[in-house]
Amino acid sequence: MSFDVLQDKIRDKKNPTVAGLDARIEYVPEYIRQAAFEEYGVGLKGAVEAIWQFNVGLIDALCDIVPAVKPQSAYYENLGWQGMEMLERTIRYAKEKGLFVIADIKRGDIGSTASAYAEGWLSGAKIEGQVFKSFDADCVTLNGYMGSDSINPFLEAAKAEDKCAFVLVKTSNPGSGELQDIVAGDRLVYQVMGDLNERIAAGTEGKYGYTMAGAVTGATYPEDIKALRKRLEHTFFLVPGYGAQGGTAADVANAYDNYGHGSIANSCRGIMCAWKKTGGDGHDFKEAARAAAVAMMNDIAQYVTVL
Amino acid sequence: MSFDVLQDKIRDKKNPTVAGLDARIEYVPEYIRQAAFEEYGVGLKGAVEAIWQFNVGLIDALCDIVPAVKPQSAYYENLGWQGMEMLERTIRYAKEKGLFVIADIKRGDIGSTASAYAEGWLSGAKIEGQVFKSFDADCVTLNGYMGSDSINPFLEAAKAEDKCAFVLVKTSNPGSGELQDIVAGDRLVYQVMGDLNERIAAGTEGKYGYTMAGAVTGATYPEDIKALRKRLEHTFFLVPGYGAQGGTAADVANAYDNYGHGSIANSCRGIMCAWKKTGGDGHDFKEAARAAAVAMMNDIAQYVTVL
Repeated sequence: MSFDVLQDKIRDKKNPTVAGLDARIEYVPEYIRQAAFEEYGVGLKGAVEAIWQFNVGLIDALCDIVPAVKPQSAYYENLGWQGMEMLERTIRYAKEKGLFVIADIKRGDIGSTASAYAEGWLSGAKIEGQVFKSFDADCVTLNGYMGSDSINPFLEAAKAEDKCAFVLVKTSNPGSGELQDIVAGDRLVYQVMGDLNERIAAGTEGKYGYTMAGAVTGATYPEDIKALRKRLEHTFFLVPGYGAQGGTAADVANAYDNYGHGSIANSCRGIMCAWKKTGGDGHDFKEAARAAAVAMMNDIAQYVTVL
Repeated sequence: MSFDVLQDKIRDKKNPTVAGLDARIEYVPEYIRQAAFEEYGVGLKGAVEAIWQFNVGLIDALCDIVPAVKPQSAYYENLGWQGMEMLERTIRYAKEKGLFVIADIKRGDIGSTASAYAEGWLSGAKIEGQVFKSFDADCVTLNGYMGSDSINPFLEAAKAEDKCAFVLVKTSNPGSGELQDIVAGDRLVYQVMGDLNERIAAGTEGKYGYTMAGAVTGATYPEDIKALRKRLEHTFFLVPGYGAQGGTAADVANAYDNYGHGSIANSCRGIMCAWKKTGGDGHDFKEAARAAAVAMMNDIAQYVTVL
């Protein structure tokens, strides 16, 4: 009923970072792609199997270094239902390896529709009085533009299983300010969203003091993170934007509390595509991903000590 | 590159409404459910096949009455990848029957991630230089909280195929005002969103004067719709909230222009669950759905004439 499970895993590994699993076929080394296309043909099935093998390799290489992985649903939906089937497999495999899985789905809908999403991604579908799980992630990302109606059903579903969610507050993209930075009285829109989110989840704080409704706050706006850290003291942060998007370890450091708790920084391309920078042909993708994950951990450790 | 395709279909049928396909197992008549569970077992596969048969019956019963259907992705994701496979089948079948398909996915992400969604849902995945389609809807719904970065990639993907999108502006739920009605200078947040959306899509107007980026505006806030109709003269509206949620034909009528163009009203439960009100056991679900769709069309025709 909070972020305790994730925070415990972060403390175990002394590593407050999460590796993205953004399954683009261009990120998969040539030798894996070719083998999959030869076996399954050039098409959705071939791409799905190539990415599956890549994901398994990444999870194997990272599972004793990082506490969590974050598959981005867009890259699986890109490949239709076959991609979604592989996403289910990927989530299951990552959990078997002890990883906390944040499904980056950014869903946002209301009432019974939001409940349907929450069941599919967290608590399982209800059919004839029985529960059937499918995606079964530990945590999801959400979009709260529709208000508390779009957040509460996920918190209800998550409570039963000690799962949790991150709601978009201040995102890392260049255009995030077009709506999020609009001045609304004495606040900005993203502050309204953050305040609303913390209020909705009040009372669900766990042993570390964080509620079950975290916030996405982009590393590319470090001053905003610093202010949000003070403003939302019970909100756990997910911080995208480190590395390829321009966020530094010093930027990311603003998201943690004095114990090095309360936040997790994400890197995707920097880890998944590390093999493209070794000069090799991709056969070293596991070692390269692992080295990049260790480098990110050490980079952030210069600024943040997880107690 | 606009809403011309949908508007033409609306004019052909003189019916500016869309039937929701919100695939809840509870909406399926007992005799279909039982047969599917007997054949496939009580579980995801059984539920998927029961809903598939229900969807086919609804599409058959409605395809000469309504111009469009709107499957809600939440109810398919609820059943995992097997639900997503059935959603692909449903979209394909509806298109074969001449229906315009609005996939109600409310996705919102940025840059290459948004492009990945757009490919999956509209233009097809790119693999080794070839294009492979999966969900292949005519139109999607989007959440623009992340700004233009989350809308533009969909418009790019949609342009190539004369498809389009609806962006959430003022939603129909009770809590929609928590964020959307916040005062931001001389506007409300949802007006900022609507203005931004119309500006992003400027230049894509078709023969009816509407851009390819429509807006979702809930029937439950009729005064807001009336003001938005004047404010966003180039924006096509999708209006949920008729019927079960409390919106009336008079409310919905505010969304149309003087030619009865520029908007489409959605009903879901009122049509899908019409069989629950006939006193029968569900064997009449097709006739009941058809009668409800005709009743909705006639109800709105009291206020709106499609020229």
